[in-house]
Amino acid sequence: ADPAAMDAARKRQAQLTKPAGALGDLEDLAVRLAGVFGTERPHPRGVAVIVAAGDHGVAADGVSAYPAEVTPAMVANFLADTPAGPGGAAVNALARTVGARVYVMDAGVNADLPEHPALIRAARRRGTRNLRVEAAMTREETEALILAGAALARQAIADGADLVIPGEMGIGNTTPAAALTARLLRLNAAQVTGRGTGVDDQRLSHKITVIREALDRSDATDPLDVLAEFGGYEIAAMLGVMLQAAALRRAVILDGFVEGAAALVGVALAPALRDYLFPAGECAEVGHAAQLTFLNLSPMFRLGLRLGEGTGGVLAAPLLLSAAATLREMRTFEEAGIPT
Amino acid sequence: ADPAAMDAARKRQAQLTKPAGALGDLEDLAVRLAGVFGTERPHPRGVAVIVAAGDHGVAADGVSAYPAEVTPAMVANFLADTPAGPGGAAVNALARTVGARVYVMDAGVNADLPEHPALIRAARRRGTRNLRVEAAMTREETEALILAGAALARQAIADGADLVIPGEMGIGNTTPAAALTARLLRLNAAQVTGRGTGVDDQRLSHKITVIREALDRSDATDPLDVLAEFGGYEIAAMLGVMLQAAALRRAVILDGFVEGAAALVGVALAPALRDYLFPAGECAEVGHAAQLTFLNLSPMFRLGLRLGEGTGGVLAAPLLLSAAATLREMRTFEEAGIPT
Repeated sequence: ADPAAMDAARKRQAQLTKPAGALGDLEDLAVRLAGVFGTERPHPRGVAVIVAAGDHGVAADGVSAYPAEVTPAMVANFLADTPAGPGGAAVNALARTVGARVYVMDAGVNADLPEHPALIRAARRRGTRNLRVEAAMTREETEALILAGAALARQAIADGADLVIPGEMGIGNTTPAAALTARLLRLNAAQVTGRGTGVDDQRLSHKITVIREALDRSDATDPLDVLAEFGGYEIAAMLGVMLQAAALRRAVILDGFVEGAAALVGVALAPALRDYLFPAGECAEVGHAAQLTFLNLSPMFRLGLRLGEGTGGVLAAPLLLSAAATLREMRTFEEAGIPT
Repeated sequence: ADPAAMDAARKRQAQLTKPAGALGDLEDLAVRLAGVFGTERPHPRGVAVIVAAGDHGVAADGVSAYPAEVTPAMVANFLADTPAGPGGAAVNALARTVGARVYVMDAGVNADLPEHPALIRAARRRGTRNLRVEAAMTREETEALILAGAALARQAIADGADLVIPGEMGIGNTTPAAALTARLLRLNAAQVTGRGTGVDDQRLSHKITVIREALDRSDATDPLDVLAEFGGYEIAAMLGVMLQAAALRRAVILDGFVEGAAALVGVALAPALRDYLFPAGECAEVGHAAQLTFLNLSPMFRLGLRLGEGTGGVLAAPLLLSAAATLREMRTFEEAGIPT
């Protein structure tokens, strides 16, 4: 980010017609946006949510409350014709409300997805290998998906996106997210493993065992090796989205725990990525708080979302657009003729 | 609110393509909106923020960090021509971002406000009397301002508002808000008195003494008597906005502590009002949490706002529009062909 622009934004903010600090966390968000966009008056406009879908070999171990067949069904749902417009999932409804554009990528779904002109096809394999027993992805697959995510981010940005939201769909993907978080933050499986879309106590205990076995299987620490060993195709794609958006000086809104895992790989590769990340909400997954603490970033709300798809990111977009607007559109005390 | 519509919304929500409860607090908000709008598929569109401004006799006692001259200066700021459009205050910048319409009312500012076609003039007096030593308003003034607020709410609703946000500007007005909250919730002055726009320890202690003297002066308990004794013109106007919006089955977004004080008077007069209230953020004022606990309502975010003007309400509007959109636009598992 641009420290000079952030300094200028702080100085401007101190002169705006409001008591110092009265806009709370919005003030820090505004200054960070100034840093991202390199101007004391940032003007983000377009919002894009890029939903990457992938399946997970580890789902066969019963780590999710839902069967893997839900992944392709939800991809179809993201693209469905509905009376309200394209897409009948939560992310579509929210994106229409806030004016965000939705991009849908097959990053590695375990199904024959029907032809659809809006579906971006980047799959190299139908679902990852089972991370409990072997590397989830090859290094070559991992890099291909990162590049596919980056390419789609470039397209979204060319279409006008200033706020870029990586989102995901993949039954079982809180398991790779937990494994990545554990390895990258040097925590144990129990410290980062939550209920995902809603497993019970017994399945949670099993999920922790699966993640522990995976972590015991490989001592990888190189970020891309860690991603290949324990990650997933949609997680690699989201990493590519984040790195490309930041490189093009766009703000990245971080939705939840799976996105956070991709972000941890990202900051391990390129620490400067952190300055482009804006966490949306604190999600219910136990490992999410550990991710945000490590990134030293605060979430904008606590609505208890645990859906994924980038939904939290879409909800947060108007808050960031609003934060930027205060720097851009508010008058100073001097302009308003108010003595200070 | 409409319990049948809420039941229908809950049943519909359980069938939507997401894990049960995965949209967190948004799900309860959506059901409450179904109750307000009387349909399982609520479709709020327009957003209006009504900023009522008034001065306070008690400001002469030094209860605020700012001089009373700031009130008329900020009214001018709400109406100023700026390169971005009408209004150079925070509420204007936020309202432009989310597409909300701003209405500005002189409810009782202590100044000759310049002519402006967009300024709604409802003042009966230039500022209230000092609530420490006498009733802030007469009963007749109180009722006149309630009716003026109601009339402006009707206008905003006729202009298309489905989400109505009462907002305020009035140097010193956290003092009447604290006095109202103390009396209506039967708390003492220290339990509900905070720093407003930023008084120091000494002035906070003085502010508590002023509020205690006011409470000792009158044993009023009738809600309108309490409002007249301890309230303010903009608070009465906001009460009128809330009651009228609820009567016309619109949702009211509650910004902060001063709005919350008006809401407490409102539910004392008409308990059904509570079902139409949607608190935006938890504000930094100590008495705000007590108000929300009494109303049994949860805020949507905790951004630490303490500005007023309805700013928090404007930031919350996209969240409510989004919550309603999930009920309206998401497909059910059956529609998406996903087995459950």
